Amino acid sequence: MRKIESHHLEDIALGAAVLGTGGGGDPYVGQLMAMAAIEKYGPVNLISPEELDDEAWVVSVGMMGAPTVVVEKIPGGQEPLQAFEALKAHTGKEISAIFPIEIGGINSLIPVILAATTGLPLVDIDGMGRAFPELQMVTFHLVDIPSGPVAMADEKGNSVIVNGVDSVWSERIGRQALTTMGGSVTTCDYLMQGFQLKEAGIHHTFSLAQRIGETVRSLKHRNQSPVEALVEEVAGTLLFTGKVNNLLRRNSGGFTKGEVSLSGLGQDQGRTFTLYFQNEFLVAEADGEVVATTPDLLTVVDVETGVPVTTESLRYGNRLAVIAIPCNEKWRTVKGIETAGPRYFGYNVDYIPLGEESKERRVLQ
Amino acid sequence: MRKIESHHLEDIALGAAVLGTGGGGDPYVGQLMAMAAIEKYGPVNLISPEELDDEAWVVSVGMMGAPTVVVEKIPGGQEPLQAFEALKAHTGKEISAIFPIEIGGINSLIPVILAATTGLPLVDIDGMGRAFPELQMVTFHLVDIPSGPVAMADEKGNSVIVNGVDSVWSERIGRQALTTMGGSVTTCDYLMQGFQLKEAGIHHTFSLAQRIGETVRSLKHRNQSPVEALVEEVAGTLLFTGKVNNLLRRNSGGFTKGEVSLSGLGQDQGRTFTLYFQNEFLVAEADGEVVATTPDLLTVVDVETGVPVTTESLRYGNRLAVIAIPCNEKWRTVKGIETAGPRYFGYNVDYIPLGEESKERRVLQ
Repeated sequence: MRKIESHHLEDIALGAAVLGTGGGGDPYVGQLMAMAAIEKYGPVNLISPEELDDEAWVVSVGMMGAPTVVVEKIPGGQEPLQAFEALKAHTGKEISAIFPIEIGGINSLIPVILAATTGLPLVDIDGMGRAFPELQMVTFHLVDIPSGPVAMADEKGNSVIVNGVDSVWSERIGRQALTTMGGSVTTCDYLMQGFQLKEAGIHHTFSLAQRIGETVRSLKHRNQSPVEALVEEVAGTLLFTGKVNNLLRRNSGGFTKGEVSLSGLGQDQGRTFTLYFQNEFLVAEADGEVVATTPDLLTVVDVETGVPVTTESLRYGNRLAVIAIPCNEKWRTVKGIETAGPRYFGYNVDYIPLGEESKERRVLQ
Repeated sequence: MRKIESHHLEDIALGAAVLGTGGGGDPYVGQLMAMAAIEKYGPVNLISPEELDDEAWVVSVGMMGAPTVVVEKIPGGQEPLQAFEALKAHTGKEISAIFPIEIGGINSLIPVILAATTGLPLVDIDGMGRAFPELQMVTFHLVDIPSGPVAMADEKGNSVIVNGVDSVWSERIGRQALTTMGGSVTTCDYLMQGFQLKEAGIHHTFSLAQRIGETVRSLKHRNQSPVEALVEEVAGTLLFTGKVNNLLRRNSGGFTKGEVSLSGLGQDQGRTFTLYFQNEFLVAEADGEVVATTPDLLTVVDVETGVPVTTESLRYGNRLAVIAIPCNEKWRTVKGIETAGPRYFGYNVDYIPLGEESKERRVLQ
């Protein structure tokens, strides 16, 4: 166990944005909210999964909705507790710890708020090892741990409990309901016991996010280009360096969807690159050929500062580096690829694990 | 207390369609479902409000969604019990009796199904004395009894609990969620105690529906025009007799909305008449002048048979009689008119109680 204090939050937010692959909402908003909560209630106890009792009930908390909305509608701060209280009242369970559903953007920091508010420990684990846009896209789903009952709370005080027949239905119904609740809500879900979380989760990702953040920040302060160091830290691959020359982005059905094109800089001069996104960056195409896809991670950072760029903050003219990071092996199973592979998102291309050679040229149809 | 048996259901459905003012779904579907339930579980005990214990917990059950969808998507029969069980589990209350939320169309008969299935008595009371399209348009709302928690169940087995900050928010969120749940759901809500139901409800409307049904059916069987007898039975006014010459109808936001125009027959030859509806008939206009509005009841029946016509079953060429019936006095209060008067529905005209003279010609703007 170690303490998470206010001054750790900047690094955590930065690292979580790298692992957030463009999604999960602007981490800066989450950082400010978590700082306010720690200021008010004191530091948070971060525990290793091994420290968690097998029988203990644990729950995740996060925000659901289009990141563009999350950024414009800064949460009031009481929603995590409201969603938590709604779930507790509904299930009657004594809950002993909190964990992040995803280690991406704002959703790595909402659990810090709830942990500070309730005094419960935060577990150093998550259900994605990255960010994904839908509620059932977690490693818990791969072993049939359901999301429901899903408690949702908005800033007006409304709350909803969704009990879908499975996690896909809970996602559909919750996503529809939240469009009336201001476009984003705070959710409390994936109530499970310690032994389930340890088996099904991805371990030590909260600490990983903090380490990545420290790396980027320390290099930025020494005025070195942090891209190379970042690639090394995450065991990734630099796919492309370029400048945004085209951007299509719209809000649709509670998601931020679109594509962004880059024209190459430096070594990539003369080449073109396109990223397709649905809250997160999902498919990367170099010179018309698919070179990496979800569930592997596609992270976009500013070339100069190494600071990650989210899909809702992309701007024309941004100078960006695109980094691919291999996903956790849990995602590379048949059910993992069915759940979060490119075809699930409607991209007509097969998943080929990063690092394995594709026998033929892969083209989006 | 008296028994409701299978052979009573035709009259109840017919009478409830008259009081349903065109909304609440096709009563025939409800009749078939209730018949099947009584066949399987035995007759239902109908109790007078006076027989209900003041401390007893009671709950209403009904369907929510566009009637056009309800008619096409015949419910599976288990949804009332699923919604009821979800509410019971959520609140932990011992529930002693069931009541209809509205005495209109299918929603007067869904409680019969739940009463048969659970063996609980049905209370001879409702929250509208008619049908209305939104969840908070009940006399309970006028004395601040909230609808929530609202349990919703669909035919796939999904359930949702909506806890809006008030009944208007529960309505908005529930209405949005149900568009993903197949366009209609069964709801269980307005959990309250006996003394509240007795004070806030409209008494003996279930029996009234049955009496109206008996009147229409007995006259139909004697080959007399039932319109005059019906007008007398409900203490109403015959507003117009005519033939449908124009019909605009669409499904929008979970509602069946539109308008129907009639050209006069018999005494009304040469005159025109228009009815505006949103699930229910809400505003009546004769020769361009508004002559009756919600919350008073506008009922449309077939001229020959006296059988009520719902807004989703209107057809070009129908020969119809339009009857206005004074609403219960609870609706004629300031909050009643705010909640269910013409302006709430977006019609730019004041409510003038049926029977009171309007000083000036009222025209929709």
